Amino acid sequence: MKRVFSGIQPTGIIHIGNYLGAVKNWVALQEQYDSLFSVVDMHAITSSYFQVGSGTHIAEQLKESTKITAATLLACGVKNIFIQSQVPEHAYLMWIFSCISPMSWFQIMTQFKEKKSALNGASLGLFAYPALMAADILLYKAELVPVGDDQTQHLELARNVASRYNGLFGDFFPLPQPLYTTGTRIMSLRDATTKMSKSAKSEMSRVNLLDSPDEIRNKFIKAKTDSEGTVKYDLTRIEVANLFHILSEFTGKKPEMLEAEYRWGDSLAFKQTIAEVVIEKLRPIREKTEELMKGDNLFEDLEKGRQKAGELASLHIKEIKKTVGFTV
Amino acid sequence: MKRVFSGIQPTGIIHIGNYLGAVKNWVALQEQYDSLFSVVDMHAITSSYFQVGSGTHIAEQLKESTKITAATLLACGVKNIFIQSQVPEHAYLMWIFSCISPMSWFQIMTQFKEKKSALNGASLGLFAYPALMAADILLYKAELVPVGDDQTQHLELARNVASRYNGLFGDFFPLPQPLYTTGTRIMSLRDATTKMSKSAKSEMSRVNLLDSPDEIRNKFIKAKTDSEGTVKYDLTRIEVANLFHILSEFTGKKPEMLEAEYRWGDSLAFKQTIAEVVIEKLRPIREKTEELMKGDNLFEDLEKGRQKAGELASLHIKEIKKTVGFTV
Repeated sequence: MKRVFSGIQPTGIIHIGNYLGAVKNWVALQEQYDSLFSVVDMHAITSSYFQVGSGTHIAEQLKESTKITAATLLACGVKNIFIQSQVPEHAYLMWIFSCISPMSWFQIMTQFKEKKSALNGASLGLFAYPALMAADILLYKAELVPVGDDQTQHLELARNVASRYNGLFGDFFPLPQPLYTTGTRIMSLRDATTKMSKSAKSEMSRVNLLDSPDEIRNKFIKAKTDSEGTVKYDLTRIEVANLFHILSEFTGKKPEMLEAEYRWGDSLAFKQTIAEVVIEKLRPIREKTEELMKGDNLFEDLEKGRQKAGELASLHIKEIKKTVGFTV
Repeated sequence: MKRVFSGIQPTGIIHIGNYLGAVKNWVALQEQYDSLFSVVDMHAITSSYFQVGSGTHIAEQLKESTKITAATLLACGVKNIFIQSQVPEHAYLMWIFSCISPMSWFQIMTQFKEKKSALNGASLGLFAYPALMAADILLYKAELVPVGDDQTQHLELARNVASRYNGLFGDFFPLPQPLYTTGTRIMSLRDATTKMSKSAKSEMSRVNLLDSPDEIRNKFIKAKTDSEGTVKYDLTRIEVANLFHILSEFTGKKPEMLEAEYRWGDSLAFKQTIAEVVIEKLRPIREKTEELMKGDNLFEDLEKGRQKAGELASLHIKEIKKTVGFTV
């Protein structure tokens, strides 16, 4: 059975864009594949401590976000979740990869260049993190990696690192393949030209999995739409199309069908209907997450994930250490 | 009691330049301070796998060099030795340091620029290794670091990293101070304008601690000296002065005293005398190293070092993880 690995950063709360674009897909994939999913908290610090005066508040936020992210994933039905920083082999393998990878591979990374330019500088971690990402995947000899388009370049680097290692020492790592999500990309509720994103300033731009029914209603009702009164599925009317896509993903029905099925009154009635569907779909996830955040089950579940990840990591690192000439 | 940390790369055999310049000093320091010394095999791979076709032979050499280096240090009387790659917290702390350190700190490193230029390129590891070096020192909260002049810049970086961490999260790391060796610098036997070095092409340029008596005799007798017949201690006669310094370090007598004490015949007799002194001083080290290489005591001794290092590393990393917001 092929192994799937993917990671999610613990920055803020998972929103419906993440859920429909990635998490829902993970739940489906784990039925077919041997799966491992990680809350990659080590990746969450590449810029957060850079250029700030005090780090204590950021650290508290990170700890809380990691916990909520893990609980939300479990509530969504994702199994075999572990927290990256609890498996020390990730950083260890990253060092080995750093030594077999030319600097030039990292200098060309689009995300590095964009973030460096936005921050007017970069930490060494921001430059080097694709090597950690390669380690995240290859530590488990994962063969399939569900990724968004924005991760294509990083996965390509992981493949190059694996090839380089195999070339130096003989075949060991499979070359991981991307698994692109088939679902439609969910856009911001405030600006349908950009993806729904955790980092967008306006909370109104995204519906979080843990939002209350009132928050969900409010966000959909205030969602930006064009001034045409009729509700029609038309890809050139990007805001309304985005709402149709959300409804489609949550109901499992095609937008064309939804358009035909409902007798949409005005745009407000349309938004209210979507809100109620989303509220009901998210209710069990929110309730389960809240329950997990209160009790000890969260840590028991995460410990199971850590054990599975830890066993594989320790097995593979032992072989890798021997291969590169470290004393075991 | 203040803690001392220092590391030595397992590249080739330790020579009398290393011994007189560093190792002998470590033996003295461990009487005064709480000490930890590491064979830093993770640093030995920053360039060795870069730009080569196959890595298997290099890996075998590294493993053997690590073992011989550790055995030689033990034979010299160094205690609390451990092998860096056996303590996974070094790479882990390095990652955290990478995220709080600007890239610009690494771009100005003289050794990086020199090596990159010599290799016509660099691995990510060669660029990032001062962060690993900072982790090596700070993982143990070492306060004193015996270093050569060529490591001043790296130690300065470690201090900057420690200050940055303390500034973000409150005082945790001591700022490590350099301990410069007082001994005279030992130069190459073939070219007294350059330091005796493991990486020099000619084996005749250095006397290794494990050289046989015949090899030692041969190297000293063929040591390059000027054409003046008389043997005098004169700092402008750099080759002869270097031989005086070697004799001085091994006998504990000042060069001026040695010049007066011996009635040196010609330069050959002088070289023969030095050779015999060095042979007798190195004999117990060579014999002890050979004994350690054969038996199991080497691994027992290294295991003791690993345990001491591992306990401190695990204690400190636990606190650091909590501080930066990782879930422990």
